[in-house]
Amino acid sequence: MEIEKFPIVRISEQGRSESDGMVATEFSLTITLNNQELVTLLCSPTKLDCLAVGFLSSEGLIKSKDEIREITVDEESGVVQVTTKQAREFAQGISSRRFIGSSGARGTNFSAISSTSWAKVKSHLQVSPPEVFALMQEFIQHSKVFRATSGVHSAGLCDTKNILLFSDDIGRHNAIDKIFGECILNDIPISDRIITTTGRVSSEILLKVARRSIPILISKAVPTNLGVKLAADLGITLIGFARGKTMNVYTCGWRVVTDGE
Amino acid sequence: MEIEKFPIVRISEQGRSESDGMVATEFSLTITLNNQELVTLLCSPTKLDCLAVGFLSSEGLIKSKDEIREITVDEESGVVQVTTKQAREFAQGISSRRFIGSSGARGTNFSAISSTSWAKVKSHLQVSPPEVFALMQEFIQHSKVFRATSGVHSAGLCDTKNILLFSDDIGRHNAIDKIFGECILNDIPISDRIITTTGRVSSEILLKVARRSIPILISKAVPTNLGVKLAADLGITLIGFARGKTMNVYTCGWRVVTDGE
Repeated sequence: MEIEKFPIVRISEQGRSESDGMVATEFSLTITLNNQELVTLLCSPTKLDCLAVGFLSSEGLIKSKDEIREITVDEESGVVQVTTKQAREFAQGISSRRFIGSSGARGTNFSAISSTSWAKVKSHLQVSPPEVFALMQEFIQHSKVFRATSGVHSAGLCDTKNILLFSDDIGRHNAIDKIFGECILNDIPISDRIITTTGRVSSEILLKVARRSIPILISKAVPTNLGVKLAADLGITLIGFARGKTMNVYTCGWRVVTDGE
Repeated sequence: MEIEKFPIVRISEQGRSESDGMVATEFSLTITLNNQELVTLLCSPTKLDCLAVGFLSSEGLIKSKDEIREITVDEESGVVQVTTKQAREFAQGISSRRFIGSSGARGTNFSAISSTSWAKVKSHLQVSPPEVFALMQEFIQHSKVFRATSGVHSAGLCDTKNILLFSDDIGRHNAIDKIFGECILNDIPISDRIITTTGRVSSEILLKVARRSIPILISKAVPTNLGVKLAADLGITLIGFARGKTMNVYTCGWRVVTDGE
């Protein structure tokens, strides 16, 4: 369901051959909150309840499982309906203004991209370079869908040694929202945890992580300038270009300690 | 302006070194049409007029330069104001519904992702594998910002031998919109042309290209299943994974001819 096979022609200097091309599935998911249509996302067709809850949480519309009365997933029609125990005020904030990020961003309002309204992350978690290398080696190869298609991003919730939760999605934002949605739905604690991602770290990604007070964000890819500035302002250790046995530490390097320090 | 330098710590198995990290700039651009705020995009801070016009054209809100009365770019406040000679009906279609694609998509309405309302591309343009390899070799190395930061996508308008127009942006959708916006603003013909991209080909990217009746789309990356299906339905030759001397032809392979055929 996450992968579809198409007949393709593979061409190289050696000639042509007919082959099967494995391609990631693109799925249209509409999320409603209290019967009001909120957004339609293009995503991978997995963990749709986690995606909906993670999205709502990223938008600041729900904070905990206790607030949710019911979640109905209709895969056929591509709709997740979330109802909360109490009414939600969101019509103006979300629906009325269109904000499109570098790659699927969805701040309700660009003014959110200011660090002044966010609390600094205080965690004393530290990680060593060999731990980062080992984590990322496992993380980058973890997605079966990526290995088959090269067409999805991955996200992980980790401690310094293990991948605790993993998700993939055609959208790098969705992959992260799925992680945080799963944490909410399954009461998985996130304090002193690390988020890993294969995607670039733009302001929107950084703020998703900052909203959950995650102290360390590790990406296989690079950040934008605003990603770096927000990480510095909010006390988040931002590691980029983590692949093979190298990495760049952009901010809060005190959390990256050499063994024995 | 497109690149910002930050002090970073580079860590490898050999140890740590302090260095300069070059990072792509993320810019917030608000587009207004006839004084109505339409959208806020995260983008790279170049060719803002092209991006605005290309975006409006991708949304079906303008078709030609003749329709435009004035374009005002305010880099300071991050606003491009476009006014048309005649009033535009768009409030319901664009502003009232939020649609977020896999990576910055912006269909006004997901029902747009059906090929039935689109004309099939009829161009007889053909390209040979050595031409594709040569084009992509030049294309992938063309962006100075990518070479410095690894943090942007590129798009190109090409004939079978040359890159005619080039743009880069932190968003793969924006890079393509900049190309088409530049074509509109500078009266550059696009019939029988090729679009090249470094980004994945989701339905939204395919439809941007289909809207302009581009016969051949070549990506360094892979398509989604919906990208492949739409390309097949709309008669577009979709080439993916074009890197080095290999490529995958997903659809309409009759436009890829071996020399001498």
